[in-house]
Amino acid sequence: MNQSPLPPTLPATDRTRHRRLREQGSLDRAALNAILDAGFMCHLGVVVDGHPMVVPTVYGTDGQSLYVHGSAASRSLVAAPKATVCVTVTHVDGLVLARSVFEHGVNYRSAMIYGTPRLVTDREEKLAGLRCLTQHATPGQWEYARQPTRKELAATALLALPLEEASVKIRTGGPDDGDGPDAELGIWAGVLPMVTSFGRPEPDPALKEGITAPPHITARSGTRVG
Amino acid sequence: MNQSPLPPTLPATDRTRHRRLREQGSLDRAALNAILDAGFMCHLGVVVDGHPMVVPTVYGTDGQSLYVHGSAASRSLVAAPKATVCVTVTHVDGLVLARSVFEHGVNYRSAMIYGTPRLVTDREEKLAGLRCLTQHATPGQWEYARQPTRKELAATALLALPLEEASVKIRTGGPDDGDGPDAELGIWAGVLPMVTSFGRPEPDPALKEGITAPPHITARSGTRVG
Repeated sequence: MNQSPLPPTLPATDRTRHRRLREQGSLDRAALNAILDAGFMCHLGVVVDGHPMVVPTVYGTDGQSLYVHGSAASRSLVAAPKATVCVTVTHVDGLVLARSVFEHGVNYRSAMIYGTPRLVTDREEKLAGLRCLTQHATPGQWEYARQPTRKELAATALLALPLEEASVKIRTGGPDDGDGPDAELGIWAGVLPMVTSFGRPEPDPALKEGITAPPHITARSGTRVG
Repeated sequence: MNQSPLPPTLPATDRTRHRRLREQGSLDRAALNAILDAGFMCHLGVVVDGHPMVVPTVYGTDGQSLYVHGSAASRSLVAAPKATVCVTVTHVDGLVLARSVFEHGVNYRSAMIYGTPRLVTDREEKLAGLRCLTQHATPGQWEYARQPTRKELAATALLALPLEEASVKIRTGGPDDGDGPDAELGIWAGVLPMVTSFGRPEPDPALKEGITAPPHITARSGTRVG
């Protein structure tokens, strides 16, 4: 594990240099971390048999690496450590409704992380990575739930992707056609915002009587995701 | 455009055959259509210079094809028509909180569509595809907003991906460890649901006075996405 501090500015590589719409691109590590902290679902892109495969999966991060996990039998995870992957995390904040169809868009925050992941095999490191993943989706849950057995650990593949090469794109604000000729058209323009939030915990029907949801779960009801 | 009816069952190919957790996999076209109808953001996976690139973008569908668009200068769109792409649409419905960390998961509905997209160049077909895309994200908006000029059309690349090869995965319900020894642990288990919904329209600060948001936009406030 490389625990040396990562630079505050991400490198502009051939893959992460922002070519278009530069105002939306960022190489700021703080912006990357904020996007990763806000969610827990990513889309993992791998090349399998020459074609791309985009798999939704949960992730965790400790600021140095991004962790994804799955069954040790998974095609996408087995293929991943041998080649470059692209992990994309996206939060959608609203529809940008312009006067012209052409200027329509989406307000979003997105991070694309490139790299060759490492299959984590060391027991302690694997436990730490899985803790990070569990805590990222549900803070407090690693200590609350039963932790993995040796057999469960063996059945789980954990990949660590260094947070070294990444591209951040953020779009905020209203449409861009308010200062052109289209502004005279009398067409409404603005943003239709979108919000994702947690609802109320739904107990497992098989739950034994008398077991109530702990505060670290109930406290999330009504809070925002993303 | 192939407008012959598509079969109600999707073919099980090497890419779409469900190998693990079979109960979550589906080859039902109605399930695919329901997932596509519920959202408007996908993750487009392409191979660029040998590595995967996963780009968040809006999509539309007419039940035969899935449409994505972007700048005619976009790397991911220019690379796409020459090779297989994977388009993934994911709706996250909640965190599955089990008694054991190992049984934790996510309730979700996801579709992965594989194929080689076609660059749409015919003017009428391109307009129809862009209409489909605009209407999919915001029904009523194609007729309400100013439609593309010839120049705007030329600056837009539109790809059509046939809905022929796709894999659907759906997970619903509570955790799976309610009937094993972990059920005796006294740990709360259940689902923490997540919902995404539209907020109230936010007018562009540059909007001229007296232009109010039309009903097809205001009616969406409070409605669910995904």
